[in-house]
Amino acid sequence: MSSVSAAVLEKFEQPLRLTTFPDPGNPGAGEALVKVDVAGICGTDVHLWLGQLPIPLPNVLGHESAGTIEKLGAGLERDWRGEPLRVGDRVTWASSIACGECYYCRLKGQPTRCLTRKAYGISYCASDPPHLRGGYAQKILLRAGTALFRLPDSVPSEALIGAGCALTTAIHGFDRAPLSWGDNVVVQGTGPVGLAAIAVARVAGAARIVAIGGPKHRLHLAKSFGADAVVDIAELKTLEQRREAVLAVVGPYGADQVVECVGYPDAVNEGVPLCRDGGQYLVLGQYADAGNISFNPHTITRKQLRMIGSWGFEPRHVDRAIRLLEQNTALRDQFARGITHRFPLAQADEALQTARAWAGGKVVILPNEEPAAH
Amino acid sequence: MSSVSAAVLEKFEQPLRLTTFPDPGNPGAGEALVKVDVAGICGTDVHLWLGQLPIPLPNVLGHESAGTIEKLGAGLERDWRGEPLRVGDRVTWASSIACGECYYCRLKGQPTRCLTRKAYGISYCASDPPHLRGGYAQKILLRAGTALFRLPDSVPSEALIGAGCALTTAIHGFDRAPLSWGDNVVVQGTGPVGLAAIAVARVAGAARIVAIGGPKHRLHLAKSFGADAVVDIAELKTLEQRREAVLAVVGPYGADQVVECVGYPDAVNEGVPLCRDGGQYLVLGQYADAGNISFNPHTITRKQLRMIGSWGFEPRHVDRAIRLLEQNTALRDQFARGITHRFPLAQADEALQTARAWAGGKVVILPNEEPAAH
Amino acid sequence: MSSVSAAVLEKFEQPLRLTTFPDPGNPGAGEALVKVDVAGICGTDVHLWLGQLPIPLPNVLGHESAGTIEKLGAGLERDWRGEPLRVGDRVTWASSIACGECYYCRLKGQPTRCLTRKAYGISYCASDPPHLRGGYAQKILLRAGTALFRLPDSVPSEALIGAGCALTTAIHGFDRAPLSWGDNVVVQGTGPVGLAAIAVARVAGAARIVAIGGPKHRLHLAKSFGADAVVDIAELKTLEQRREAVLAVVGPYGADQVVECVGYPDAVNEGVPLCRDGGQYLVLGQYADAGNISFNPHTITRKQLRMIGSWGFEPRHVDRAIRLLEQNTALRDQFARGITHRFPLAQADEALQTARAWAGGKVVILPNEEPAAH
Amino acid sequence: MSSVSAAVLEKFEQPLRLTTFPDPGNPGAGEALVKVDVAGICGTDVHLWLGQLPIPLPNVLGHESAGTIEKLGAGLERDWRGEPLRVGDRVTWASSIACGECYYCRLKGQPTRCLTRKAYGISYCASDPPHLRGGYAQKILLRAGTALFRLPDSVPSEALIGAGCALTTAIHGFDRAPLSWGDNVVVQGTGPVGLAAIAVARVAGAARIVAIGGPKHRLHLAKSFGADAVVDIAELKTLEQRREAVLAVVGPYGADQVVECVGYPDAVNEGVPLCRDGGQYLVLGQYADAGNISFNPHTITRKQLRMIGSWGFEPRHVDRAIRLLEQNTALRDQFARGITHRFPLAQADEALQTARAWAGGKVVILPNEEPAAH
Repeated sequence: MSSVSAAVLEKFEQPLRLTTFPDPGNPGAGEALVKVDVAGICGTDVHLWLGQLPIPLPNVLGHESAGTIEKLGAGLERDWRGEPLRVGDRVTWASSIACGECYYCRLKGQPTRCLTRKAYGISYCASDPPHLRGGYAQKILLRAGTALFRLPDSVPSEALIGAGCALTTAIHGFDRAPLSWGDNVVVQGTGPVGLAAIAVARVAGAARIVAIGGPKHRLHLAKSFGADAVVDIAELKTLEQRREAVLAVVGPYGADQVVECVGYPDAVNEGVPLCRDGGQYLVLGQYADAGNISFNPHTITRKQLRMIGSWGFEPRHVDRAIRLLEQNTALRDQFARGITHRFPLAQADEALQTARAWAGGKVVILPNEEPAAH
Repeated sequence: MSSVSAAVLEKFEQPLRLTTFPDPGNPGAGEALVKVDVAGICGTDVHLWLGQLPIPLPNVLGHESAGTIEKLGAGLERDWRGEPLRVGDRVTWASSIACGECYYCRLKGQPTRCLTRKAYGISYCASDPPHLRGGYAQKILLRAGTALFRLPDSVPSEALIGAGCALTTAIHGFDRAPLSWGDNVVVQGTGPVGLAAIAVARVAGAARIVAIGGPKHRLHLAKSFGADAVVDIAELKTLEQRREAVLAVVGPYGADQVVECVGYPDAVNEGVPLCRDGGQYLVLGQYADAGNISFNPHTITRKQLRMIGSWGFEPRHVDRAIRLLEQNTALRDQFARGITHRFPLAQADEALQTARAWAGGKVVILPNEEPAAH
Repeated sequence: MSSVSAAVLEKFEQPLRLTTFPDPGNPGAGEALVKVDVAGICGTDVHLWLGQLPIPLPNVLGHESAGTIEKLGAGLERDWRGEPLRVGDRVTWASSIACGECYYCRLKGQPTRCLTRKAYGISYCASDPPHLRGGYAQKILLRAGTALFRLPDSVPSEALIGAGCALTTAIHGFDRAPLSWGDNVVVQGTGPVGLAAIAVARVAGAARIVAIGGPKHRLHLAKSFGADAVVDIAELKTLEQRREAVLAVVGPYGADQVVECVGYPDAVNEGVPLCRDGGQYLVLGQYADAGNISFNPHTITRKQLRMIGSWGFEPRHVDRAIRLLEQNTALRDQFARGITHRFPLAQADEALQTARAWAGGKVVILPNEEPAAH
Repeated sequence: MSSVSAAVLEKFEQPLRLTTFPDPGNPGAGEALVKVDVAGICGTDVHLWLGQLPIPLPNVLGHESAGTIEKLGAGLERDWRGEPLRVGDRVTWASSIACGECYYCRLKGQPTRCLTRKAYGISYCASDPPHLRGGYAQKILLRAGTALFRLPDSVPSEALIGAGCALTTAIHGFDRAPLSWGDNVVVQGTGPVGLAAIAVARVAGAARIVAIGGPKHRLHLAKSFGADAVVDIAELKTLEQRREAVLAVVGPYGADQVVECVGYPDAVNEGVPLCRDGGQYLVLGQYADAGNISFNPHTITRKQLRMIGSWGFEPRHVDRAIRLLEQNTALRDQFARGITHRFPLAQADEALQTARAWAGGKVVILPNEEPAAH
């Protein structure tokens, strides 16, 4: 039996190590063996590498990937949309599986808070067979029940991974805190989630969109994704300066919706005053527990705010993302162009460090490319 | 021209002083001169007396009152519902007037955040004519544009003031954060707003309602207003004990909705963990700015919360309150019975101190009763 | 192997015939063999018997039943809520299974419109093994994937079946067309769905509820379920008379919500004018295709109506119904008392004819009682 | 005192007659005297001319107009948004005034169903002073309480009137039946309301939009406003053919939302089957009572439809329209280019007959242009 290479996180803050695992062979009922074509490096991967979230080690990271079906298990004949699945199809998949049976899945309609949810590239220990449960590998074995999506011919795998889980995260966020067309929107943060939030707000008919972030090349991206104005945190260094710059665009009372896509807890205290009274504050970026802030709850009452949290996404948001890329050529090209660095699997650690350095655009691993591809 | 007595707050933390002002005589167009029958002492009045909110001095307090129409200005022929108004009618009125023309009133549908909103018993300086703009007085002169409501014969003025602005505040809160019938609800606080929140949650079909508060006589009231279970903060002294007691009733994942009616900022950190993931946290009690707390915004994202603020109420919520008391005999009697102390105007300061001492139920002033009425 | 008795519909409009089928023996994985304790006769069963809906013959009717678990298939260890299931437990089950995978289940969140939905007692041919797929039988074999609910000790099976699928239908209806507490409601029809709609509207905090229907004993029931006023169609014979009677209670502009629970198409033309402009008209009763009416679509635009359809219910609505009966003692007793006729399985046809004659309250079959039980 | 020319409808189906009325002189408190620059001919004007709606005669038609302020009454210093108003400002105004005090305005939040609503160009008798209450005149005297909007320099009056009340009607419609971005939409009708509905659906992020209508030049416009596909009723003459063509674009189960903008009652029976189960059917076009259809209410229940009516619009929808034209240059140009015929006031009747003939795009009257302008 042949073997499969994977880049493994064995110790936090230590280089990923290239390892081989036995090829899983024929998948079980409902499973799929997929050759990974593109594995995106998500900002969360950097947090995982730093040990800031509780995950089992060793671990094959990679939760936003696209690949080609190599083998289909018994009974797996259709993708999540009901379209036929065949060996050789290009696919992506939802990173998590919700059980569909627990308190949150069934009784409360909150599958992203499923009590037994596990995510590829995050929740699986690479010591446990079948080992291959992350995208930083030549192949991944997808469990029965995974929401698989056949990619339309018009949607290149790189466009999809260029958008990454940031896009589905933003889509889910606006699902919980819907925009009305014509609303003014402030997006805090110009990382991947921030850019995706700008893109979705633009599609959904936002009137004016202001992005706060940096550095310059990210602000340039923010504009290309649809921001009407950008606020450079390197230039406007005080809260007051930034607030003035934002209100100059959205009006003196603040925006109808402010979307936090930063991750630093302090962003909340900057963002709330940018929101008009009775507006929505969507807390989209506080994925990691980065500690407490000094916060005044009187603000919530007095400003009559809606502060809305959003965690992960469901398969239907992946579907929405694919449909968006299928129908919106400009956006598709933009996300594809957002990939600035490509690495072979052997350089997975370098890929991760590049993403960590926050130097360019999206960084991806091409696990089945020869090292020269870079 | 005759004169009108009023109890005036001249200096914060000093006794109210009984003063007389000239009788306003014939009201102007759209105005109404009303003899005050019952003026409730709201917890906010205690905050105002302590100087914790910025108000002009001197000031005739009293923002929840009912009275009898003495004179009607030209053109004021119907109440807010369109019912005919006549001299001698028993009435109440919304404490605030929203301009109907500003950014919040017109463009954003948030009249409680009206940019020029003024409230009787709070925002008017008693030095300025016509002086009589609060309930702690024999008469009040209501401005044109005030939302007046003729009281149905079946709704005694004391039942209405027994409910007070706490009821309209709770009604507005649930308007912004609607319950679905069958939801489990936790109410933090058993002051007037907490009791009103329990009452409204019960009417709206809540499944289980747990109230956290004290002292004993308030918990007894909480049960009589519809709480299925109560948690006595004097007995269960740690967050963990109280959390266990709450979850024993609403289930291990928390309540669908938690309503904060406490006012201490720390209540937010106690209440959020009582809310199930994806649930609603209604911040109803943080009216005064009582300072900051150490708060973790990661919670909002991870628990997928909706934290919803609510400020004041609109005339339609006063109407809803009157209709509720009209239709629900049991609730009407309960609110009426909730009045435990009645004072003549001359003892307005004693009334305020009684409310401040938090010793009994609702305290009211009967400004046109003789001193012996007490 | 022993045999199981069932009452079978072999030809439309012909008497049900008592037949025996082989006992299914041990259930397959995920399946459950349940002894039927109570099988309700639903109005739909009468329509099915008359051949007004396309169903396969022969057919074991009965889609609202409660029973006792006799055997559990492999892996079926918990009910829909996650509570442990054991042989001997009293249970009920959702009458339909949605596939969870089709366009309506997955992409559009409309599981009641699942493309391959099948309902016990309706969609299964009794000629096909395992034959026992309806409630008019001593046993029913429930498929893997059925939403099973263990009944709380406090909820007698007869209370549940007394409410029947009418209650879950009403709960689903108000889920699609939510009431706000304080709304005025008109319920057209005082059959089982109408009574259930009254009960749910009352629980959800409706202000005034008017029921239109008959005969007298049904109107009496309507009042006991919470109607403030009833309109007897035998007394007020013209639309205009009935409209006047309704408006006398809900006010001259109509009700906030009108719920059609009649089934005759003409009811729509009677109901729409009872609805205030901008109100909701919930079409809950048009389950069978009873033909066209002459209808003016201008009304929808001019009255700014919301006409909302509702089909069937989901497992979570069954859960809601059980929880309601568990928590609301009065309602539970009322539904239990609503059963006026009980028949042994041998008299299943007499049971059906009794229901058809519309003479009393709820009619049920007790398939495992001896004939003398009647 | 000088005089003002107006085109007056004196008898239904008779030519408009050019008349003069005395110049109103100085407007009263809150009123505005406005020189009419552009008056749009709305399809409703044709219905009015034909006598299909109950209006007083004689009547100065014209309910979608823009003009220049000639004189401002006392106290009228700001427009509806709070921006300063001065003589010489270009303005438009909401065609109707809601009283703000009646059952629908206050208690039910349905100002478009205001009990005493009057519309310029429709509800006023030209015999009654001040006579000038419609747009087909050199000047119009606007009542106190009219929602006036100062037009931004970037929004030409012709762009606004090119959009006309069709745009505000569509905006109000989608306010009542909101789109989610990514929804598929079918628009029935390619008249002004249909085109506006397409434009708004596109802005709000619709995925695929199919327009059904004609003739060819209107379908061409439909595409330029954002329709992905058009169905020509002159080519596909049967319901079945058109249904097939629509489903080929939106998928076999129908669209998420279908918007009726036709006006013929039969359109409802064509549109409902184009809607997926659980979808929304927005009845936007049935303004005139054009009679009954044979309709099957079972469809509403079985398809679990939401049929939603929408009547007129509120001032905030006019504001939204102006903001949309201000921010969306492409759309602004498109609406401006949509005007194909311009007439001086003396040819008002010819203008109306041109609109009636349905030959080109938008027809407008320029009441203060010299006859040669045409």
